[in-house]
Amino acid sequence: MSVQDLSRFSINQMTVKQLPLPELVDSCLALGVRSAGLWREPVRAYGVTATARLFRDAGLTVTTLCRGGFLTAPDPAGRARALDDNRRAVDEAAALGTDTLVLVSGGLPAGSKDLRGARERVAEALAELGPYAEARGVRLAVEPLHPMYASDRCVVSTLAQALDLAERFPAQQVGVTVDTYHVWWDDNAPAQIARAGAGGRIHSFQLADWTTPLPAGVLDGRGQIGDGSIDMRAWRALVEAAGYTGPIEVELFNDALWARDGREVLAETAARFLEHAA
Amino acid sequence: MSVQDLSRFSINQMTVKQLPLPELVDSCLALGVRSAGLWREPVRAYGVTATARLFRDAGLTVTTLCRGGFLTAPDPAGRARALDDNRRAVDEAAALGTDTLVLVSGGLPAGSKDLRGARERVAEALAELGPYAEARGVRLAVEPLHPMYASDRCVVSTLAQALDLAERFPAQQVGVTVDTYHVWWDDNAPAQIARAGAGGRIHSFQLADWTTPLPAGVLDGRGQIGDGSIDMRAWRALVEAAGYTGPIEVELFNDALWARDGREVLAETAARFLEHAA
Repeated sequence: MSVQDLSRFSINQMTVKQLPLPELVDSCLALGVRSAGLWREPVRAYGVTATARLFRDAGLTVTTLCRGGFLTAPDPAGRARALDDNRRAVDEAAALGTDTLVLVSGGLPAGSKDLRGARERVAEALAELGPYAEARGVRLAVEPLHPMYASDRCVVSTLAQALDLAERFPAQQVGVTVDTYHVWWDDNAPAQIARAGAGGRIHSFQLADWTTPLPAGVLDGRGQIGDGSIDMRAWRALVEAAGYTGPIEVELFNDALWARDGREVLAETAARFLEHAA
Repeated sequence: MSVQDLSRFSINQMTVKQLPLPELVDSCLALGVRSAGLWREPVRAYGVTATARLFRDAGLTVTTLCRGGFLTAPDPAGRARALDDNRRAVDEAAALGTDTLVLVSGGLPAGSKDLRGARERVAEALAELGPYAEARGVRLAVEPLHPMYASDRCVVSTLAQALDLAERFPAQQVGVTVDTYHVWWDDNAPAQIARAGAGGRIHSFQLADWTTPLPAGVLDGRGQIGDGSIDMRAWRALVEAAGYTGPIEVELFNDALWARDGREVLAETAARFLEHAA
């Protein structure tokens, strides 16, 4: 495969989380992969400045930082902690040289049945974080997660809901992440992708395939590209018809992939991208 | 609790599937439960005619038969088998004296990524089954299942999709099932419930609560009423504001409940209904 074919491909670090950062960089260089989306925890363990230098020296682009969010705490102390943590995430994104911080909104507070109220608290947090991020050249990318995560992880379940939140703010502050895994079932998603593109709000585009049976907890069963039910080319075409020309991250949470050699998984993932999404 | 308080309550047989049919009937009578939704497999094992007599003699109402459907096979032989089986399900519903057959549409055929095509095959099947059902006094109640089942169980994931299908046919042939477990995350569901009610298409209303973590396979983790994230009174109010005055079935698929004494679970379920949904 050529660098040209992979020019839009970005490997999300979670897909190959078994690779330490220097090995991730080496593997990308060896395979002609030019971009990666990073996660806060491994970056902070390695050091934010050291990670930024590692990628800059290798000539690799950091496409997103995953992730901020978890903004639904109802109590003032919990809210303040979440906002502090998200400002740090913005700072880390800026230091890494990426313009995009992916946000996962957070679930219902313990004992709550109030989805609408929780979504409203996300909006309140975005009002505080948006200007902070913009001042540092970082855009917030609200990611709707599949409705199966609505109670415990993300009260924003559809692109329509994510855009209803994002459109309260300037596009250079708040947009959305389109992840095939989370939206593929939604016959309203194509229209929402067009809406997001028209507003310049597709800040990140991620791929994962839908495979069953889902594992317990439903977190770590995202399928390798081509293994599942999602027509990747069709979704890529929708996102590009909406004007998106940015990186396409493959982000898989998958116990079976994590148990394998990370370089091999990265090579397979790039090959699957070329086969099913290029 | 009084019979009056439970007048709208119906126990779906699946909630207490450990109870043989005669024990289910005895338990209902002992607790003042007047209605039950039945499932085809245990009914056929006991005998359709014998089941009908059992319920009639006890003065109990059969609120629904679960379930027909699985209508997405693309090949002629598979389609013919599915239609034959659904005509039998209609006959069984009529024999049991219920006017409502719940339909679960079916998932994607093996290897397919075409959700839209599968949904269209459901519509084609409804066109054949609707008149057959109407002639026997049975209404088809298309049940949208949570989007986590879209690939392997039900390509109809939202009330909007279910109504888009149902509204191609007369309301006395095809309506929808509203099940809190499947729609609770959907901020578009309240408007769709109003739409369904205005068209006389709420043919069944079922309750189950949303609890996490989800078990592997995500089938048998439906929470007892009151244990999860769903505001049952709010959903009941929406359905009743849309004009629905029919039975309210509690349908739980839950390994922990199935491991317990069935009469105790039925008593608990009725009590939870009174506490959280009455």
